[in-house]
Amino acid sequence: MKKLVIATLGGALLAGSLNVYADDVEDAIEYRQGVFQAIKWYFGPMAGMAKGDIEYDAAEFTRRAEMLNQLSYMPEEGFIAGSDKGDTDALPAIWEDMDQFSAGFDKLQENTAALAEASKSGDMATIMPAFAEVGKTCKGCHDNFRD
Amino acid sequence: MKKLVIATLGGALLAGSLNVYADDVEDAIEYRQGVFQAIKWYFGPMAGMAKGDIEYDAAEFTRRAEMLNQLSYMPEEGFIAGSDKGDTDALPAIWEDMDQFSAGFDKLQENTAALAEASKSGDMATIMPAFAEVGKTCKGCHDNFRD
Repeated sequence: MKKLVIATLGGALLAGSLNVYADDVEDAIEYRQGVFQAIKWYFGPMAGMAKGDIEYDAAEFTRRAEMLNQLSYMPEEGFIAGSDKGDTDALPAIWEDMDQFSAGFDKLQENTAALAEASKSGDMATIMPAFAEVGKTCKGCHDNFRD
Repeated sequence: MKKLVIATLGGALLAGSLNVYADDVEDAIEYRQGVFQAIKWYFGPMAGMAKGDIEYDAAEFTRRAEMLNQLSYMPEEGFIAGSDKGDTDALPAIWEDMDQFSAGFDKLQENTAALAEASKSGDMATIMPAFAEVGKTCKGCHDNFRD
């Protein structure tokens, strides 16, 4: 019982400390959804180029990979305590296993950095494995944590 | 009349070339609005710290300034031809004076870079003028180009 009280108190304090910067769950949801929109915007045409639906443009592909890497650092902070409720597809599993969720973003940051690096080769044979890793990381997180 | 035809054709070609990567006006609107949500997310608590409503945290302020600078490179590409129509507050003035609109983003990029640099001083007296410049740049663009 004592443990539970402490755990609950700890959770409340953590939520409180996060809420110094974001006390509005709705803002947090809109923020992270906005960042994911931007990620989609940059990723989409890269997938098009990888599939051959859009003509490959090395500079444009690299620019998008770099933007993706910058954006990969942003969404996590939007998953504040309490923001599983509201206009969101985020599953409660996120807050039940924040460590695994957070590790997914670490992986996305590493993989998009590797993709940006590989992109500079201008060679699709070099780029494709790195691109596939990014896609897998997106999918892994969506499968586990998104409705 | 010939001039008008050429201008219209030029506009169509430009729209076509932009549309290699973004052929959906709705996607473009959602994208840029998403980026502006993220800008708001990072900027809000900085304003709170500048006003003294939130305790000043030098590292957190700098982190936010750097995120702002990264984001300042993103919105412009979302203003594709035809995206003045739809669920948007963007005024037609944007497409009537794209040079001035674009110059506003150049300014935002410079000013947020200067703010990120000033932030490292950890000294509000140094930071405030740079912060005010960023605020002015946001406002200038909103006044002219947003409904």
